[in-house]
Amino acid sequence: MEKIKIGIVGYGNLGKGVEKAISINEDMELFGIFTRRDPKSLNTNSPCYDLNKITNYKTDIDVLILCGGSKSDIPEQGPLLSQDFNTVDAYDNHQMVEKYFTKMNDSSLKNNKTSIISTGWDPGLFSLSRVYSEAILPVGKSYTFWGKGVSQGHSDALRRIEGIKLACQYTIPKEDMIEDIYLGKEVDYNGKTAHKRECYIVLDDKADQEKIIDEIKNMPDYFLGYETEVFCISEDEFLENHREIPHGGKVIRRGKTSENTSSIYDFSLDLGSNPEFTASVNVAFARACHRLNKKGHFGAMTVLDVPPALLSIRSRQELLKSYI
Amino acid sequence: MEKIKIGIVGYGNLGKGVEKAISINEDMELFGIFTRRDPKSLNTNSPCYDLNKITNYKTDIDVLILCGGSKSDIPEQGPLLSQDFNTVDAYDNHQMVEKYFTKMNDSSLKNNKTSIISTGWDPGLFSLSRVYSEAILPVGKSYTFWGKGVSQGHSDALRRIEGIKLACQYTIPKEDMIEDIYLGKEVDYNGKTAHKRECYIVLDDKADQEKIIDEIKNMPDYFLGYETEVFCISEDEFLENHREIPHGGKVIRRGKTSENTSSIYDFSLDLGSNPEFTASVNVAFARACHRLNKKGHFGAMTVLDVPPALLSIRSRQELLKSYI
Repeated sequence: MEKIKIGIVGYGNLGKGVEKAISINEDMELFGIFTRRDPKSLNTNSPCYDLNKITNYKTDIDVLILCGGSKSDIPEQGPLLSQDFNTVDAYDNHQMVEKYFTKMNDSSLKNNKTSIISTGWDPGLFSLSRVYSEAILPVGKSYTFWGKGVSQGHSDALRRIEGIKLACQYTIPKEDMIEDIYLGKEVDYNGKTAHKRECYIVLDDKADQEKIIDEIKNMPDYFLGYETEVFCISEDEFLENHREIPHGGKVIRRGKTSENTSSIYDFSLDLGSNPEFTASVNVAFARACHRLNKKGHFGAMTVLDVPPALLSIRSRQELLKSYI
Repeated sequence: MEKIKIGIVGYGNLGKGVEKAISINEDMELFGIFTRRDPKSLNTNSPCYDLNKITNYKTDIDVLILCGGSKSDIPEQGPLLSQDFNTVDAYDNHQMVEKYFTKMNDSSLKNNKTSIISTGWDPGLFSLSRVYSEAILPVGKSYTFWGKGVSQGHSDALRRIEGIKLACQYTIPKEDMIEDIYLGKEVDYNGKTAHKRECYIVLDDKADQEKIIDEIKNMPDYFLGYETEVFCISEDEFLENHREIPHGGKVIRRGKTSENTSSIYDFSLDLGSNPEFTASVNVAFARACHRLNKKGHFGAMTVLDVPPALLSIRSRQELLKSYI
């Protein structure tokens, strides 16, 4: 079997996850990791290259997986790299997806390349569930819950407060609201009412605990208006219990199939590691990206444009026999 | 908006469900129902036609939804009707899907028609979950649980026992096994260990209750080897509580993203009416079928071959803006 050659751009948590995911997909191999840092400085046995020289390798790589941040890396790297490479990314700035899609489509289409954007779990698998469930149950309501999981943005916000040494923020969906949706009750759903926030913080010796808790609970955009609990813990306890990056969530749609009959469509994820799972989704879509490009499907796509069979290593016959 | 014109073949529970589903999809209209019975005898306000004359209407219909049984109707009607029509069906004989696919592909491909087979929830949505989840988590195990729901086959088997007047059999997944999978414990999963069966029966006056319960519990293939409970109830109670056709179930995959880190992918359905929900899935795939045919994609497909966006009434722009 000729293997699909993958390049990784960026070696943070996501890039490391992609490196692991490639190793458990037998039809893939890692060509190398491209970094803006000194390639020799990365702590890995995989080949590492200077990102500035990436176009030297354009005939060696089937698909590039872009593992930089959505804030500034991807919007810049995506349109540039998709001129020379098929690309897959986990771009997750929901508000800017439409604009990003247009740019990626322009650059890849012009060069007979294929790019699949926003292939994580939200956006990504959750987007799929929102579309499948609404198409099947057009009369109904959809709800997205996130968590229990670590929000990096909120953890960062906590760490910026003076007096906080270490911090980790968990977003937690309200189970009683999920139960009410199942029971068919009307719920007052929005981001604030559907989730609560738990903060685990380690304080500096001289910090004023009361003042800091008050500051957290009243931080606009991040915590104000949310049910927020703050737990001050020791550094030992923090390092013991709050170093993983779990996440997850669910998309629920409750819809009517006739006047008095309803159905519930529920897609849930419970992820030991958010970046590793996101990486696993990226890698499956990289397989599809390679196949679509070989078939002559050029331009940008989202997960909604990809026939599911193209993600699978299985043959059509195997799929018909054992998966349908 | 020019509406997609749907024909329904067969007017049992599934056909009635399709009729309802079309009425809540604003881009569709029902051309008519085709039946082997006297068209005037159907209890509906929709136009009804003799199935034998269906080819008279081949230019009037965009997609036919085949609502007959998988045992004998669909295997015969599918290959015949897909010569003249685009078709969607909920063919659910898992063992025969491969053979049926080949026949459907031959007949539709030859005539520039498009057929999407096995578009219910299992096969159908569950097939999608099995493929997505395995592609994303290649190192892991998948489990399918059915229920709580009414099994028509098992209810029929009960009704064939002498002395039983009315019967309804519920298949119920074992919650403790699902919990164990979530906890990462090894489970002894197979159809028999993962489900229990509850039978609600109404006996004839002179029936020997003990003997009948014994006969049920020892019925090979159906109940022997299963944890089976039998409840003898009154006719009134039966008619009050056991006339709905709920169903549901879940596909779970637990997979590793690295040595010590696992994720769980869980797709669950809780259906007020099995035939109405199946019909809703059929109708969404009918939209895709029509679009695929217009784009020149001919031949047979399964749910795995259909880009999810084609199921949705939304434009690409709407999908990018609000669903990704």
